[in-house]
Amino acid sequence: MDPFLQAAMDEARKGLAAGGIPIGSILVLDGKIIGRGHNQRVQHGSVIHHAEMNCLENAGRLKASVYARCILYSTLSPCPMCSGAALLYKIPRIVIGENVTFQGPENYVRSQGVQLEILNDPACIRMMRDFIKARPELWNEDISV
Amino acid sequence: MDPFLQAAMDEARKGLAAGGIPIGSILVLDGKIIGRGHNQRVQHGSVIHHAEMNCLENAGRLKASVYARCILYSTLSPCPMCSGAALLYKIPRIVIGENVTFQGPENYVRSQGVQLEILNDPACIRMMRDFIKARPELWNEDISV
Repeated sequence: MDPFLQAAMDEARKGLAAGGIPIGSILVLDGKIIGRGHNQRVQHGSVIHHAEMNCLENAGRLKASVYARCILYSTLSPCPMCSGAALLYKIPRIVIGENVTFQGPENYVRSQGVQLEILNDPACIRMMRDFIKARPELWNEDISV
Repeated sequence: MDPFLQAAMDEARKGLAAGGIPIGSILVLDGKIIGRGHNQRVQHGSVIHHAEMNCLENAGRLKASVYARCILYSTLSPCPMCSGAALLYKIPRIVIGENVTFQGPENYVRSQGVQLEILNDPACIRMMRDFIKARPELWNEDISV
């Protein structure tokens, strides 16, 4: 597995072990990880700390010229909020573990010039499938359905 | 002035008084304020606590059926991230203090079925104009240019 997707999976598993929603994210600059995060809805009662948001927050305040050299990894297709954050910071590329169990506004994100790479990794799909089956109410809350 | 826009302005002024970026937001449910927030980039070194995000976080975990009855107020046209958060939570209406000094992806948000009301309130415009003139580097960082 891509080592950065592996690191995002490690974040997702940390979240799961803490009773949370297993989605993880990594921010990579010039081949080095500069931010890590996972969904914090359960752990911190947060409605904005989705994995990608938590990762960006943990990476801290960065210049536009730095974001422009970054790749954002997520175990799951980014939702409208997380996609919007990537667009705000003009992150040029997003690597997505899977978009089988959930799909964000990928066409819109692509239309704004962002390159998306969809891996559809079996381990990512299995993790979310198992979680959605086990905790459907929590998953529905996280995507507001 | 609309009392909810006034409350959003009060939030923006709180932020300004604390050395922050003067953007405020209010979440209204059935005519009552259930969330308040303002931009926290300076105060908490946050890249995700824009005013609307901070407001949604302060409102806490809500059911989709509650968001569906909410109106989100912001002193400034929501950026891609904050627009995305409103889309994620399917908030049906956003009242915007002004979109003269900055304009988010309003057409896209409208295309997703959200009703936008643009007030272009002179006090909101003046507050942002003065701030952008005084702290252009901070403002550019907040919108990543």
